[in-house]
Amino acid sequence: MLMKKFFGMALSCAVLLLALTACNSNNAQQSAPAPDKLSVLKEILQVRKSIRQFDTTKVVSDEVMLDILWAANGINREDGRRTAPSAVNAQDIVMYVCQGDGTYLYRPAEEVLEKVSGTDIRPIFAGRNSFALNNPVIMLMSDYSKFSRFGAEAAAKFGAMDAGYVSQNIYMYCAAADMATVACAPGINQKAVQEALMLPETMISLIYHPVGYPAE
Amino acid sequence: MLMKKFFGMALSCAVLLLALTACNSNNAQQSAPAPDKLSVLKEILQVRKSIRQFDTTKVVSDEVMLDILWAANGINREDGRRTAPSAVNAQDIVMYVCQGDGTYLYRPAEEVLEKVSGTDIRPIFAGRNSFALNNPVIMLMSDYSKFSRFGAEAAAKFGAMDAGYVSQNIYMYCAAADMATVACAPGINQKAVQEALMLPETMISLIYHPVGYPAE
Repeated sequence: MLMKKFFGMALSCAVLLLALTACNSNNAQQSAPAPDKLSVLKEILQVRKSIRQFDTTKVVSDEVMLDILWAANGINREDGRRTAPSAVNAQDIVMYVCQGDGTYLYRPAEEVLEKVSGTDIRPIFAGRNSFALNNPVIMLMSDYSKFSRFGAEAAAKFGAMDAGYVSQNIYMYCAAADMATVACAPGINQKAVQEALMLPETMISLIYHPVGYPAE
Repeated sequence: MLMKKFFGMALSCAVLLLALTACNSNNAQQSAPAPDKLSVLKEILQVRKSIRQFDTTKVVSDEVMLDILWAANGINREDGRRTAPSAVNAQDIVMYVCQGDGTYLYRPAEEVLEKVSGTDIRPIFAGRNSFALNNPVIMLMSDYSKFSRFGAEAAAKFGAMDAGYVSQNIYMYCAAADMATVACAPGINQKAVQEALMLPETMISLIYHPVGYPAE
């Protein structure tokens, strides 16, 4: 009887030990506190950079592209306000996705891409940046007509500033998602882009962002 | 003897049950996967907004201010590159902290604030934004001399764009840290700011950001 009692106790202890061991390994993982938003933001800022070498074998899915566009300048409030601010809340920045099969307009309210042209317009503005021809490109345009009451000089300043806000969001998305991007500005032929997309001359191309995956 | 055996088994079961219950509550917390960087970034973007009502009883500590400034336009790579990109990597954006006891220059290499004036310059540019007088203000200036080879128009465009990048970082920091900020631009008297800080006329004030804590 003593043996059996001992056996029963030993069994209890073994079970307890096993259970606690299992618990303990969980606790070890759990004791590292869940990273707060600020720590994660700083981690992302730490790896924010321009990448010009892309792995062109990896395709950016439609889902990812729409996700980037929302992050860049999507609607984050019920009143239609955006992830990026804009001067006098003009919401002047319009985003196009330019790729081989044509050009697509991002419609923030519906979170969809609408095909507006069958032309690949990337050769118009890519210049010597050949990497811009091998990846989908987000073009940030400012609708200067939103600033007409402030004059041309202010419109140029506000448009550029607002494009910077949106561009940083694209950088941050790519940094967080281990993707690659670089903001390119010079060499944009405004008139040719406007004609290709049948846009008024108040629609100014300011920054284009090839997006993709970094080459190993 | 049977009673004792039964008792021993019951004890084992009870111990197992207790241990597993304890484990389970841990597992429940753990089974929610640790949020990845991208999910956290989108959470922050979801709450990115301009806030003009500040709780002036809460003071921004020096540590937090330096943290914001690093996030805004600090050095994130060994080669001196920044959390915010700049046109032709000119690193034209210079940040000042303006408060009641004077004006401080952020020195990114040392991550310190250097007092450059005992004057509170906020009244020069705050205009009707009285909230800018009750909070420390980060002033973003562009050093246009960095763009002199591109001409005045390009300098204005590049400077504004680069200020937008930095400003978005300040917004993102405040969104992540439950702080308050708003980018303010108009009404800046360039000459008066330059004179107060003994700066050349190529140092252009572009955006000022009161930072603090939101009013309840």
